[in-house]
Order: sequence, then structure tokens, then C-alpha cells
Amino acid sequence: NVAKILKKLHPADIAKIVQNLAPDERAFAIKAIDDLELKAEAIEYLDDYTIAAEILEQLTPQNAARIIQSISVDKAVDILEELNEEFADEVYKHLEDKFKEEIHSLSRYPEDTAGGIMNPDFFAIDKDLTVKDALEKIRKASKEKKIIYVYVIDRFGHLIGVVTLRSLITADENEKIENITNTNIISVRTDMDQEEVAKLVEKYDLLCVPVVDNKNRLVGIITVDDIIDVIREETTEDIYKLIGTSEEEFEETSILNIIKYRAPWLIMSLIGESISGSVLKFFDGTLKTAISLSFFMPLIMALGGNTGQQSQTIVVRALALGKFDESGIWIIIKRQIKTAISIGLLFAILGFAMALVFQKNFYLSLVVGSSLFISMFLSTMIGALLPLGLKKLNVDPAVAASPFISAMNDIVGLLIYLSIATATIKYFGVSL
Amino acid sequence: NVAKILKKLHPADIAKIVQNLAPDERAFAIKAIDDLELKAEAIEYLDDYTIAAEILEQLTPQNAARIIQSISVDKAVDILEELNEEFADEVYKHLEDKFKEEIHSLSRYPEDTAGGIMNPDFFAIDKDLTVKDALEKIRKASKEKKIIYVYVIDRFGHLIGVVTLRSLITADENEKIENITNTNIISVRTDMDQEEVAKLVEKYDLLCVPVVDNKNRLVGIITVDDIIDVIREETTEDIYKLIGTSEEEFEETSILNIIKYRAPWLIMSLIGESISGSVLKFFDGTLKTAISLSFFMPLIMALGGNTGQQSQTIVVRALALGKFDESGIWIIIKRQIKTAISIGLLFAILGFAMALVFQKNFYLSLVVGSSLFISMFLSTMIGALLPLGLKKLNVDPAVAASPFISAMNDIVGLLIYLSIATATIKYFGVSL
Ligand SMILES: [Mg+2]
Ligand SMILES: [Mg+2]
Ligand SMILES: [Mg+2]
Ligand SMILES: [Mg+2]
Ligand SMILES: [Mg+2]
Ligand SMILES: [Mg+2]
Ligand SMILES: [Mg+2]
Ligand SMILES: [Mg+2]
Ligand SMILES: [Mg+2]
Ligand SMILES: [Mg+2]
Ligand SMILES: [Mg+2]
Ligand SMILES: [Mg+2]
Ligand SMILES: [Mg+2]
Repeated sequence: NVAKILKKLHPADIAKIVQNLAPDERAFAIKAIDDLELKAEAIEYLDDYTIAAEILEQLTPQNAARIIQSISVDKAVDILEELNEEFADEVYKHLEDKFKEEIHSLSRYPEDTAGGIMNPDFFAIDKDLTVKDALEKIRKASKEKKIIYVYVIDRFGHLIGVVTLRSLITADENEKIENITNTNIISVRTDMDQEEVAKLVEKYDLLCVPVVDNKNRLVGIITVDDIIDVIREETTEDIYKLIGTSEEEFEETSILNIIKYRAPWLIMSLIGESISGSVLKFFDGTLKTAISLSFFMPLIMALGGNTGQQSQTIVVRALALGKFDESGIWIIIKRQIKTAISIGLLFAILGFAMALVFQKNFYLSLVVGSSLFISMFLSTMIGALLPLGLKKLNVDPAVAASPFISAMNDIVGLLIYLSIATATIKYFGVSL
Repeated sequence: NVAKILKKLHPADIAKIVQNLAPDERAFAIKAIDDLELKAEAIEYLDDYTIAAEILEQLTPQNAARIIQSISVDKAVDILEELNEEFADEVYKHLEDKFKEEIHSLSRYPEDTAGGIMNPDFFAIDKDLTVKDALEKIRKASKEKKIIYVYVIDRFGHLIGVVTLRSLITADENEKIENITNTNIISVRTDMDQEEVAKLVEKYDLLCVPVVDNKNRLVGIITVDDIIDVIREETTEDIYKLIGTSEEEFEETSILNIIKYRAPWLIMSLIGESISGSVLKFFDGTLKTAISLSFFMPLIMALGGNTGQQSQTIVVRALALGKFDESGIWIIIKRQIKTAISIGLLFAILGFAMALVFQKNFYLSLVVGSSLFISMFLSTMIGALLPLGLKKLNVDPAVAASPFISAMNDIVGLLIYLSIATATIKYFGVSL
């Protein structure tokens, strides 16, 4: 019954359903599909390879191998890597030699490079063929492969260019392929970072990009659907880095690993805030004589932290989108300075007014207002400049995670606030 | 000279360069290109329509109109909307009637729906044609249009299905198109939200999706490159919402508008933190007798805030990626509870140890540790459950911005910390 329903669905829909089942029901659902092709496609559409591996591990090695062989090689490599070693060895034994070779040639490439995400199963024709022969080849090949572009290579496998199916059916049938080939073509090297590949595809609106080795031999293609997955993956990575955890937290079932991702940043926060505590201890004379100062500490810390994080996130995102180059950085810095001054002024006034209503002490309100201005200005600038500086040093700007930025802002904010307060008490001889 | 260099570049590269020029140099660079087609393409590749409009405004209305007409209609509509009204009227007068009509038919659709992002300039053939006639039509049309899929319609314009160029060149030339049409095809309605369209394209790995009106008549197509832009746009929107500003901040040159985006959330923070201040004021007796309590306030607030934000971001992102459905929510909640308890316990111990070293007071350290556990547990749960609750109420979960979450965590954290401290002083009669 389950089988009947599943058989009527698109493999992408089956994948969605399977992903939302309890772990022990997943293999059951996949087993219920009797069509091997559909089974493999559904597994290929799972965007979480850990789940794919878990399902395969509940099948016999023979059956797992048959499914693996029906999946595109690039995905198959990723899934094989997730299998437990013993089972993977068993599965490997049942694979056909040709497939083993393909897997072998792909395994060399790091997971997040063009080589790691490419599909080596592309379609290419020789530049010396005639249009007629080429069409004949396409007719045959198109039964097995989905052809987006027809790539043209020479007899050594070097990438020459591309012919569109369109130009093929428009050309004279005795024309040589070479003469209707568009040689002005964008390709990427196997070692290019997947994020760079995504930026190229996005910039030039490509549907598919050919991958070449260091001798310009065509070795694979990357289609735009895989690029969309890269974009999702890289964005998620950036977002999770920004808040101080790993994108793997979401796939993760082990609490120990989640703690491993989060704890370093929280420990940094612990250390940073113990410095904040030292600042307070240093000023404890001031605090004792004016306990009302402490009422505004959460405000000073929060407003500084929030504006700082806003600027930080805006700059990190703009860098990720490639919105500007060297000269553009000055535009950003200038704008963040203007923003810092205006936001600082606005909240200095609001903070002053609030303190006046709250505590009815003019000098205290002045201390609150001026501290807010300085600390919000500084934290906006820290938030904006830190990622830009990291980028300059070729460090991923997303590593300046918010627990770190928050701690810095808390320390700076409290230092400013309590220094101004202490100075006010001393030089004006007023009580706050 | 500039013209010579630009002429050799891909329009996408020209757009990148133009985008990074100072505003007054941009129109100059575009004017330097003498090929109208290249000019228009470069403008179409700009991903910021405000810039495109600024450039056009520095041309004569005639020239602007000629460029507008060479841009795909969907983009042209977006750019026209950015022009100042007077100039837009002038440009409009110089447009050809046919183009005016197309613009008119598109302007009806909200910008962020399938209708708003579709291109009405698609290629479709009648289901009653023979393969031979269809190929002839494609040959003619392909000179002007880039054809990805050939859509098949009946004589009323209803969408029947799709034929691949592949199946066209494989079929007998007297075969009727209807017989080689794949009718099992995914299409979207004009009023579908662009985010939903993107999810469909992503899920089914489509290169192009046909858009139909409420009578199933084909009215346009959306290609995957535009879907990538939607994904970028929607993700940026979510990220900016999370920190309490608007994605428009980055495009914005007016400081007043930037303040308008950020201020509401910062004012919410101001109000929230004045409640935190009231909590402190309420407990000022306790604070006066034990000033060392204040040294650990930044720590309590920061650790609660950071873990809360981590859980919140993880849940919001998982929701945006559509990682789970109804039943999946329980998996998340359970995992966040486990995370909250483990992280809370770990930092309770670390906080206890730190306080002991810092202040050498066993009861104070006990107060710090137990408060950390409770406040970190609660803020993790708030961070995870608030977005889920908003989603249940059909409110965008990204609106629970971090300034709001932080303020809530600060209030809760301080309440717990000072209540425990007061109780400890009272019932154990110890000094902290
Ligand atoms: Mg990968
Ligand atoms: Mg791979
Ligand atoms: Mg693009
Ligand atoms: Mg794919
Ligand atoms: Mg990255
Ligand atoms: Mg990466
Ligand atoms: Mg904070
Ligand atoms: Mg738009
Ligand atoms: Mg539009
Ligand atoms: Mg996909
Ligand atoms: Mg486009
Ligand atoms: Mg959205
Ligand atoms: Mg939206």
C-alpha cells in the first residue's frame, strides 16, 4: 500500500517524506519501493547525506551497492563517506569496476571544491564531427543522460567550447562542429572553491559550468541545481558562524557534538564577561556610593551590543554577496560612521530622557546619555570594521562571531560608563 | 579607450565594474559603450535597480527608452518603478506600443510573486503541429530568444506540457507534437509567492518553470538564474530581520531611512532594558548589601543572551530551509531541551568555579552557578520556541529579532539571579 502511494510520487517528494519520518521508519519506506531507479533517485534527492547513509546501512550490501551505482557519482562519493567503514567496505566489494574507477577519480578532490561537487558523467563530442554525426550521437546518448549543453573537445579531451542544441538543429548537416562551436566559454578548474564557482554561475547566469583539470581537459560538469545547494550550504555556514556555532549542529543528533560546536564561543563569552566583571570590581567604590548607576548597566550593554551586531551582520552579509570591491569598502565605512553618529545621538537623547524620568537626577542622566553616545558609536565601528579587517587578512569575516563582539562591547561600554561616572562624581562633586 | 575595454567584457563584468564606480562615473561608463544591446545587457545585470535607474536618469528619455526596450520585460518593470516619476513619464512616451502593453500586463503583479518575477517573453508551440513544423519554428525563434524548454499549448493558450529539444530531434518528423509532449509538468500560478516558487525549483531541480494564470493559460516563464536572485534576496531579508534592521539598509544612502529601519528594534531594546533596570531597582536593597553580586551581572546576561540567540537562529534558519514539517518540530524541541540542559549544566559548573576563584565566596558562587543554569536553560527554550510559535500563528518567525530576544533574556536572567541571591541571604543568613 505504502509502495503504491510512493510509486506515484516524484522522487523529490519521496525524499521530503522520508526525511520527516522517524529514523527507524525511513529504511522501511525506501524498501517499500520496488523500482530500483526510483529508490536511488529518492535517496539522491535527500539533502542530508547522513540520513541517506543510515538508510543504506539497513539494507544488504548488495542492495546498497545497486542503489549507489544508480546515483550520480558525485553524490555517491559523499554518501559512501558517511557510511560506517565496515559497511562501506562491504558495499565497495559489490560495485562494478567502472563505477569504482569513477569514484576513485572523484575521491581525490576536496568536498568543497569544483572537483568535489562536479558530475564526471557529462556529454561531449569531438570537434571534427559533422553536424549530422553529432546529432546521431546526441540521439543515442540522450536516452541515458539529461543533456543541457553539448561540450566540444579535441581528441586529447581538451575543452574547446560549447554548441547549443539550438545551433545544431539550425546548422547545415555537413557543417563541421568546430565551425559552429562557441569557444568563448566560462569553465572552472577542479580546485576552485565551491563558493567561487557559485559566484561565477550566479554572475553569468549559467545553467551548467564545465570543469577542467590543470591541462584544460574536460573532467566534469556542475549543474545549477547543485549550485543552489552550495549557496544554501554556504549561507547556512555563514549564519551559524556568526552566532558562534556550526552548521552541522542541525544535522547532529549527538549532544556532545553540539556542545563542542557552541562551547568555544560561550567560553570566550565567559572569559570576556569576567573581564567586564573586573571592570565593575575596579570601579566598586563608585558603584557603592551610587548604586543607581547599576540600574542603567543593562541598557548600556544591550544598546551597544545590538547596534554593534547590526553593523557586523550587514557587513558580513555584504561581503558574502560580493557587493563591493576595494574602493567600495570606503563607501561602507563612511556610511557606518554616519549611522553610528546618528544612532548614537538619537539614543543618547532617549537614554538621557529615560534616566531623567526614572531617577530624576540631571547629572546621572547626562552620564547615561553621553556614555550611550560613545559606546554605541564605538560598538557600531567595531562591528563594521572587524569583519572588514579579517577579510583584509584573508580570514573568513564570519568568524568574528557575535559572542565575541558582544563581550567586547560589554567591556568597552562598562569602561566608558563607569569612567564618565567616576569623573563626574570627582570633578563636579555631585552624587549620582 | 574606456569604450574599447568595456566592449571586450561580458555584460556581467561591466555591471560589476559599474556598480563599484562612484555614482557620477556610472552613467559616463555606460554612455561610453556604443553597442545598444551591450549597454542594455550590462544594465540588466546590475543587481541593484536603484543604480540602474540613476544611470538611466542621466541619459535622454529617448536613449533610456531604447535601453529599457532591450531589457527583459520583468526587469524593465522593476527599473521603471525606480525612476523618478517625471522622467519615467518621458521615457514611457518613447516606448513602442507592444512593449507598453507587455509592461502593463506585468505591472499588475506584486513584485514578490511569480507574476512579478516572470518573463512574459517565452517560446511555446501548438500541440497540433508536426515535429517538422515545430523544428522550423524553433529555428526561426532561436535567433532572438534563448530557449531552454519548448512549452506546448493548445489553441486557447492553455499549458499542455513540455517537449525537450532532445525529444524533438529524436522523434519522427511527421509525428504530432502532442504525442511526444511530457504532460506531467510542474507549473506555478501568477500569484504564488516568489519564496514558494524558489522552493519548488530547488526541490525538483528545475531549470525553468512555466507560469500560468487562473485559467491555466501560459503567461510567462521563470528561469533558474532569477530564482537564485530570489534565494539571495529572501535569505538576506531573513538575516537582516533577525538582527532588527531591513535588507534595504544596504542599498540605502539616506541615513534617515537607516535610522527608520533600526530604531524600532533599538527602542524596543531601550524599553526592555528599562524593565531590566526596574528589576535592579526592585532588588537595590540586596545589591547595596552585596555589591559583589553586580560583578556577575554581565556574565549572567551575556551567556543567557548568546545561547538564546544561537537556538533562535538555528530554528529560524531550519524553518527557512524547510528542513522539517509538523512531526519534525518535536524532534527540534526535544533536541533544544537536551542542549539547554547540557549547556546550562556545563556553564553552571564553569561559572561556579570562576566565581569561586574571583570572589572566594562559596554561597555567592553557588548563586552564580545555579542562576546560570536556570537562565541559560530558559533562554535556550525561549530562543527555540518563540520562532516556532510565531510560525504556528503564521507570522514570519524572523520577526522575533535578536534585540527583543536579548531584552527578554536580560530581564529573565536578572530576575532569577537576584531572586536566588535575595533568598540565599535571607534563608541562609550569609553575606555574598
Ligand atoms: Mg558537499
Ligand atoms: Mg562530492
Ligand atoms: Mg545572476
Ligand atoms: Mg542535483
Ligand atoms: Mg563561506
Ligand atoms: Mg565553505
Ligand atoms: Mg547582551
Ligand atoms: Mg524583484
Ligand atoms: Mg518584476
Ligand atoms: Mg535541488
Ligand atoms: Mg536573469
Ligand atoms: Mg521570507
Ligand atoms: Mg519576501
